[in-house]
Amino acid sequence: MNPLQSLARAALAVLSCAAVAAPPPAKPDASPIYGVTVPEGYRRWELVAPALESAPLNELRAVLGNPRAIEAYQRGRLPFPDGTVLVKLAWKHEPSKEFGAALVPGAATTVQVMVKDARRYPETGGWGFGRFVDGKPADLAQHQTCFACHAALVKDRDYVFTRWKP
Amino acid sequence: MNPLQSLARAALAVLSCAAVAAPPPAKPDASPIYGVTVPEGYRRWELVAPALESAPLNELRAVLGNPRAIEAYQRGRLPFPDGTVLVKLAWKHEPSKEFGAALVPGAATTVQVMVKDARRYPETGGWGFGRFVDGKPADLAQHQTCFACHAALVKDRDYVFTRWKP
Repeated sequence: MNPLQSLARAALAVLSCAAVAAPPPAKPDASPIYGVTVPEGYRRWELVAPALESAPLNELRAVLGNPRAIEAYQRGRLPFPDGTVLVKLAWKHEPSKEFGAALVPGAATTVQVMVKDARRYPETGGWGFGRFVDGKPADLAQHQTCFACHAALVKDRDYVFTRWKP
Repeated sequence: MNPLQSLARAALAVLSCAAVAAPPPAKPDASPIYGVTVPEGYRRWELVAPALESAPLNELRAVLGNPRAIEAYQRGRLPFPDGTVLVKLAWKHEPSKEFGAALVPGAATTVQVMVKDARRYPETGGWGFGRFVDGKPADLAQHQTCFACHAALVKDRDYVFTRWKP
């Protein structure tokens, strides 16, 4: 290694250490309160179950889960382990153009994310929440409603509404 | 190799050839007309889209696709290639116990399968159909209705109703 290479390597080491020590960079696409982002590749995750939301929302929905979520569902044990991520896709529903007795997904509305990390989110049952519209997080007020509703209605299911359906 | 080993190897070779030459075994769980079976591991396939069927069926549904199906959807080109398999899961819908404004999947009703194989199914647009209840194929009369409806309503979409939704 020549002196220039040595210098470059030393500089790289310092930069790496600095990167580790520095606070994480700001995430403009992270949710208020929780700092949750839309997980990469979620659209390829396995289906937990679909649902329909009645008026006034009139939405079709589908919850997908990462491998850890699916494994936990299939073992049927609560609480979900750290690393569980659930994503709910939602669309306005509309009659099928070809088969009027069916409602099918129309315009996408929200993507909603739950991330389990017991140490990071001790005050909200171990869950972080994110609600996104066109990939951008909804406002603070909307994120203030997430946990209250989950805690009031499904605390005994580890704060998760959706059941896995075979 | 001793004589017994030689004999065993020869016998195995004969059996292997016989297995290749013999007609395929009967499939009691295959659909009438088409001989379609429930594909192994389909529940882990990616979601194409959910849907809701109105009365009298009152079902929530989700169409899943094998990797070839998903790839074809994402490229947006029709017709689907041979090897495409689509599976529609269906459940009676019922109000969520915890959140009455939502309809969620209840009892499973049917699993419906479409398999693309242009040479095997030249008379039905290249598609084989299967409708299953508790893993057993529905009767002949039900399978006589599949193609007529798909051909009447979605022939220009390669006989497939469901669109992939991001």
